[in-house]
Amino acid sequence: MLDFKYFAPTKVLFGRNTEEKVADLIKEFGGTKVLIHYGGGSVIRSGLMDKVTGILDETGIKYVKLGGAVPNPRLSLVYEGIELAKKENVDFLLAVGGGSAIDSAKAIGYGLANNGDVWDFYSGKRKAAGCTPLGVILTLAATGSEMSDSSVITKEDGLIKKGYSSDFGRARFAIMNPELTMTLPDYQTACGCTDIMMHTMERYFHNGECMELTDSMAEALLRTVKENACLLRDDPSNYEARAEVMWAGSLSHNGLTGCGSDGGDWMTHKLEHELGALYDVAHGAGLAAIWGSWARYVYKDCLHRFKRFAINVMGVENKGTDEEIALAGIEAMEDFYRQINMPTNLRELGVKATDEDLVLMAHKCAVALGGGKGSAKFLREDDMLAIYRASM
Amino acid sequence: MLDFKYFAPTKVLFGRNTEEKVADLIKEFGGTKVLIHYGGGSVIRSGLMDKVTGILDETGIKYVKLGGAVPNPRLSLVYEGIELAKKENVDFLLAVGGGSAIDSAKAIGYGLANNGDVWDFYSGKRKAAGCTPLGVILTLAATGSEMSDSSVITKEDGLIKKGYSSDFGRARFAIMNPELTMTLPDYQTACGCTDIMMHTMERYFHNGECMELTDSMAEALLRTVKENACLLRDDPSNYEARAEVMWAGSLSHNGLTGCGSDGGDWMTHKLEHELGALYDVAHGAGLAAIWGSWARYVYKDCLHRFKRFAINVMGVENKGTDEEIALAGIEAMEDFYRQINMPTNLRELGVKATDEDLVLMAHKCAVALGGGKGSAKFLREDDMLAIYRASM
Repeated sequence: MLDFKYFAPTKVLFGRNTEEKVADLIKEFGGTKVLIHYGGGSVIRSGLMDKVTGILDETGIKYVKLGGAVPNPRLSLVYEGIELAKKENVDFLLAVGGGSAIDSAKAIGYGLANNGDVWDFYSGKRKAAGCTPLGVILTLAATGSEMSDSSVITKEDGLIKKGYSSDFGRARFAIMNPELTMTLPDYQTACGCTDIMMHTMERYFHNGECMELTDSMAEALLRTVKENACLLRDDPSNYEARAEVMWAGSLSHNGLTGCGSDGGDWMTHKLEHELGALYDVAHGAGLAAIWGSWARYVYKDCLHRFKRFAINVMGVENKGTDEEIALAGIEAMEDFYRQINMPTNLRELGVKATDEDLVLMAHKCAVALGGGKGSAKFLREDDMLAIYRASM
Repeated sequence: MLDFKYFAPTKVLFGRNTEEKVADLIKEFGGTKVLIHYGGGSVIRSGLMDKVTGILDETGIKYVKLGGAVPNPRLSLVYEGIELAKKENVDFLLAVGGGSAIDSAKAIGYGLANNGDVWDFYSGKRKAAGCTPLGVILTLAATGSEMSDSSVITKEDGLIKKGYSSDFGRARFAIMNPELTMTLPDYQTACGCTDIMMHTMERYFHNGECMELTDSMAEALLRTVKENACLLRDDPSNYEARAEVMWAGSLSHNGLTGCGSDGGDWMTHKLEHELGALYDVAHGAGLAAIWGSWARYVYKDCLHRFKRFAINVMGVENKGTDEEIALAGIEAMEDFYRQINMPTNLRELGVKATDEDLVLMAHKCAVALGGGKGSAKFLREDDMLAIYRASM
């Protein structure tokens, strides 16, 4: 087992109407002038924004609003947010939305609390020494950004998608009302479930040291999301299922499912990042489209974990060779993707990539990783290309 | 499912030699003059105290030491600590030890940060408005106090044992090096495993609303501790097993295993608190001695949870009536206690109580609870007495 640090200080208020506590929480963490950052019109149309600003008005907390966060959030909007927040003397950031709004708010926070170009942190040039305090009202269960240390930003110039992780960026509070996720299109709900499971699966598939407590809790989480994703496919207004998935989303990416284990594989995410930068696909769907091809390419090199996953998560019978069990687990996972209408290849994802596109993505991915990455199997550019090709 | 708050801000450094980071962490959280609070001589004999003070000396952090924390830590020592810390202008508390040192350090922290008698918080008279920042070097995996909001103190006058819970008392950091627990006597290790499992079991056995993610992760934790307790019985120097148990101890009491569920039952703890106040038994052993009698007394009123526990934690086959399955689960748990040399009744615990003693304990317990408590089954004084009698 490996040594680890665990630090998940975000105060979570979970349940119905918890958004009504937003002013109390902002005050608790010292906010007096807030930048409310959000995405599209859904938080406006749903009435959530009016509710939030109404509460802030009542309690005398000043604010300024910035919308426009899109999936694969853009660096230009981050710059705009930093300028606006500086002009308005903002001392607290409130992200209202999903991972896009939160990630972009984190980047704005780094930009406010540090001099120089905020992209430096994402490009790996330097590390942030702080972040403006951030709170979240979550409306989409997926990225886990509400409790995680990470954010992912896309630079338009060259369509470069980069993540940055720092404890400074962890939200001070996260308000999670599962009801706020009920108006999501089914496709987005399924994408969210896929992303949530993948955050644990990336940590789970590795060839390094393990911790049984972490593994068994990870498996419990995966089984729970899988079951509840199917419940939500049939009944999107199932509050209990929404709640199970929402809380799993946070626990899947706050560090808990990686404690004591090897850092994980993360190659499905890396391969998807290139897809997301070029084609602007939904992140969860992109992951589903890639995972099966990745898994079939690497499973022989990480057979003990694929076997365990098959039995403990997918319910495959412990019968036959390890390879047969592992493959049955991969097939069961792809079946699950189909059941919740997720793609299992690029075609189903709607990406019409030429072989040149695949070559370009594999090249960009390898360069971004300094040559290669992966723990289930270390992948180099030619491996990445083979997986992209297999996922066509 | 119920609404919940989750707040576990403690920064955990887990692994070998993590105690070497103690000065960095104290500085990170603003400490300049530290009260080091510890229990008996084991942290001296092991050389840990010299190591810690050596590191503080090197980095120029001043400190004063206070030993003497005992199991069921005493109010008089808390008063002594408050006086000492005031005299020495202490601004940070470092507990080095297990639950006794941590709980007593929390009480000292409440006393320092609030005017008036610190016992007021434990007796329920008023609530603390703050706590002096606290860090922990854990040497005993059991109470989970290193990440929990709770502490338990015993007032010598009347032998009243009372708990107080507040987020202010949560440790800023917890250093957890499983190697530091290796010199523990086997009995203490087994007591710790029992206490750890009980923190999750108290949350698990209830008749209220549930969350599947919480339940399935709780079951994963219980299975893990059960397996590793047996490994430690056979090989106390098994690092991996020490680590599994140590991390489970923190997760079992930091709130995670209760999210979205009813508040739990907690009557085994309450019944044991009266035992602990009168006989000064080891807390974990006291819990084991009571649990079976409690479980047999209440299981019919909470059959669905006892059945699930039997199957998912104790590995009982899903065969026969629900009552048979539930009872087989209780028997399997008692068998496990015997396997790790824990008592399953008061006699085995070494408590020679007269019936008058049992009557007194049941009365004190009922009075302390304002008449009664319990979610698996609501227990009044006569129920408590019946359980004490059954545990003879």
